Amino acid sequence: MYLRDLKKDIENYVGKEVTLSGWIRNHRRQKDFGFIDFSDGTDFVHMQLVYDKDSSNFENITALKNGSAIEVCGVLKESSGANQDYEVYIQSAILLGDCPDDYPLQPKAHSREFLRSIAYLRPRANLFQAVFRIRSLAAMAIHTYFQERGYIYLNAPIITGSDCEGAGEMFEVTTLPLDKIKGDVDYKKDFFGKKAGLTVSGQLQAETFATAFSKVYTFGPTFRAEDSNTKTHAAEFWMIEPEVAFCDLEGIMDIEEEMLKFVVQYVLDRAQDELAFLDKFAEKGLVEKLTTLVSSKFTRISHEDVITILKDADVKWEFEPVYGEDIAKEHERYITEYFHGPVFITNWPKDIKAFYMKQNEDGKTVAAADLEIPGVGELMGGSEREADYTKLITRMKELHMDIEEMDWYLNLRKYGSCVHSGFGMGFERLLIYLTGVDNIRDVIAYPRTPGNCEF
Amino acid sequence: MYLRDLKKDIENYVGKEVTLSGWIRNHRRQKDFGFIDFSDGTDFVHMQLVYDKDSSNFENITALKNGSAIEVCGVLKESSGANQDYEVYIQSAILLGDCPDDYPLQPKAHSREFLRSIAYLRPRANLFQAVFRIRSLAAMAIHTYFQERGYIYLNAPIITGSDCEGAGEMFEVTTLPLDKIKGDVDYKKDFFGKKAGLTVSGQLQAETFATAFSKVYTFGPTFRAEDSNTKTHAAEFWMIEPEVAFCDLEGIMDIEEEMLKFVVQYVLDRAQDELAFLDKFAEKGLVEKLTTLVSSKFTRISHEDVITILKDADVKWEFEPVYGEDIAKEHERYITEYFHGPVFITNWPKDIKAFYMKQNEDGKTVAAADLEIPGVGELMGGSEREADYTKLITRMKELHMDIEEMDWYLNLRKYGSCVHSGFGMGFERLLIYLTGVDNIRDVIAYPRTPGNCEF
Repeated sequence: MYLRDLKKDIENYVGKEVTLSGWIRNHRRQKDFGFIDFSDGTDFVHMQLVYDKDSSNFENITALKNGSAIEVCGVLKESSGANQDYEVYIQSAILLGDCPDDYPLQPKAHSREFLRSIAYLRPRANLFQAVFRIRSLAAMAIHTYFQERGYIYLNAPIITGSDCEGAGEMFEVTTLPLDKIKGDVDYKKDFFGKKAGLTVSGQLQAETFATAFSKVYTFGPTFRAEDSNTKTHAAEFWMIEPEVAFCDLEGIMDIEEEMLKFVVQYVLDRAQDELAFLDKFAEKGLVEKLTTLVSSKFTRISHEDVITILKDADVKWEFEPVYGEDIAKEHERYITEYFHGPVFITNWPKDIKAFYMKQNEDGKTVAAADLEIPGVGELMGGSEREADYTKLITRMKELHMDIEEMDWYLNLRKYGSCVHSGFGMGFERLLIYLTGVDNIRDVIAYPRTPGNCEF
Repeated sequence: MYLRDLKKDIENYVGKEVTLSGWIRNHRRQKDFGFIDFSDGTDFVHMQLVYDKDSSNFENITALKNGSAIEVCGVLKESSGANQDYEVYIQSAILLGDCPDDYPLQPKAHSREFLRSIAYLRPRANLFQAVFRIRSLAAMAIHTYFQERGYIYLNAPIITGSDCEGAGEMFEVTTLPLDKIKGDVDYKKDFFGKKAGLTVSGQLQAETFATAFSKVYTFGPTFRAEDSNTKTHAAEFWMIEPEVAFCDLEGIMDIEEEMLKFVVQYVLDRAQDELAFLDKFAEKGLVEKLTTLVSSKFTRISHEDVITILKDADVKWEFEPVYGEDIAKEHERYITEYFHGPVFITNWPKDIKAFYMKQNEDGKTVAAADLEIPGVGELMGGSEREADYTKLITRMKELHMDIEEMDWYLNLRKYGSCVHSGFGMGFERLLIYLTGVDNIRDVIAYPRTPGNCEF
């Protein structure tokens, strides 16, 4: 049986024989007895296996190596040890799959860099057992939040022929034989008969669904061919992009706040062991940070007022805050500390924001809100969308966008246009926050970054 | 409020004033009164709005056009009409977004081909309201099935540097400026420093997670650059690939059967209106087909015995059944009819199956099982994986595979190898089954096929 199933009903198994299959994470041998730290990965907490000379095949058991797969038959007992409540006294053990001494994942401290180089083995290490378990839970939390509230899950297209948002940061997708290209590229001969690339956002397609189902969300991979090697950038990452009709900027901020708290609480409720581990080894205070977030009130303040606060602050800025301009990482940090919690910064200068955002009456700002989280920076970016056909097309022309290619998107404003809003959240950025693991490469199973596409 | 929220508590709203925002699907006018078929898309069933000369702005209401977005305030009443239980008697209505007469989605029968050409509007049509609602529910059913049973959701990489399985059918992903390539391609200069493509399967990576967490599943997009224009092929589609350690072929078939029944029941329970509609307009008998599946026993029979049955059949085959060879569509159909239900065909000839499948003792077959479903054909393909290092590497060499590039995969058999099995299910193929809509282009929001990458 799997450890998870045993654990669910563990009190009923005390004194009974159980058969378990899994791997030896650590084997500590004494002369006449031994302890095996055992896991099948279905529960974060390992099971201690105990054996001694009375175990039916002591010589074989004591020879078992770290990393081996075994099947054990034994009796579950309450443990007198300090580190576990239960243990299994082995009656017999069968070696299923041996593991040589050169096994790279011996039970000792490894650097995260080294573990990345053996990404196919690192999910067996405690840190990644915790991280990928939380990743899975958080994904389910997101689906649960939206589905319970009647949102329709949309799989936005991955391959796209439109590159309006991602100019210059798009991966190209092709079946043309590259070594046969000589100068001009004949896209008519390519698979789709036109130039195609990997999506940088599913928002525009989500808007088409929001004007049919009112409440929709995407949750899928997105791509940026950005040549930056930072701890928070990956070329391939997952995004959640909800889009809601008959919902304005205030409404979408309500949803963002409620969703984030729901997801954090969902993980707090279901990953106590994992979070306790990460609190110890990844980010001290992690559990308190998450618990605090759930009960905190998110501040809402305009970009203009933020600049005023920054200007009035008794701080020597590296980048001087300026009305009408973007804010820097140091400003984000300051403002969440100033308000002791998450902050929605609203009504951004239109020139630094996207074309589709609703233009405010002042002619200078748009109805956008970025959510800044203590210790993370921007976690979500949302906005009310421009619902007015004329204003939208005028803005697109100002930005020299291809109107013709975008006629379907513009038509949403022609055929029953309505107030609608949405936001985007990078899933891995959420995971960095939830796990306290600070490098995006460590919350993605097989991270893709410049020069890195292994496994 | 949204229709979905109204519906949940509808009896309590009878006689009360409600405010709704949504779209006019159809407007039927009489001289002194009118009916508006109204929906905000949060529930499959529309709301009938009624108005007459007593409504506060009759002239404005009667002028409202199909496709327009409106906000109505009115009183909910039990309806005496045959087609609905409730209706809203309009007190006042506000036009939110007008809709010109050239609106392509007028309330009349449209061909599916035409609707594909307006894929950004078709989710507003009843057929696609049903289909994409079921798509969303089925996705949630799959996540629920696996998460409730302790599986870890893995996001397998989309961009991959390994092309072992997809030779010839892989899209290439690049940031090289194609028009500057002259003959030799210098992949060192490409984004990843090597040739990269879009994944054709996450299975191999899922195996790395299964040997850490025992029970895992992927659910993400996969790609095939196959130049085929059939009703069941798309270049971009979503796959579910569960992988389970300490589970053999019989075990994985149990999981496939249980999962499929769970998903079908989940949809039957939650999409009664949608399925009733599809039963009428897409596939007669759909609901009965699904209900029957849930209680049917899936047959398990070897490929060899299937061939014997086919040879003994009193049928003039287009393709003669042959021991040791693949079977044709007509054979799949016959065999599900023969057994009056789903059939797992097991122990396939090894030469027509993948390298990673467990080689049986007979030296001729592999421990693979394809699930054949009446009316659909192959829905899932699963197998026990070859866990023996020597057998696996020997097979890979026979097939002239690049051993070095695959060392990480091979190493899973070196470091604590264990019995493990998995399967793959194409999500869209499941949806074709669930909805009775027979073209894959109609169960994908924005389908990608040869020559087609719109929106």
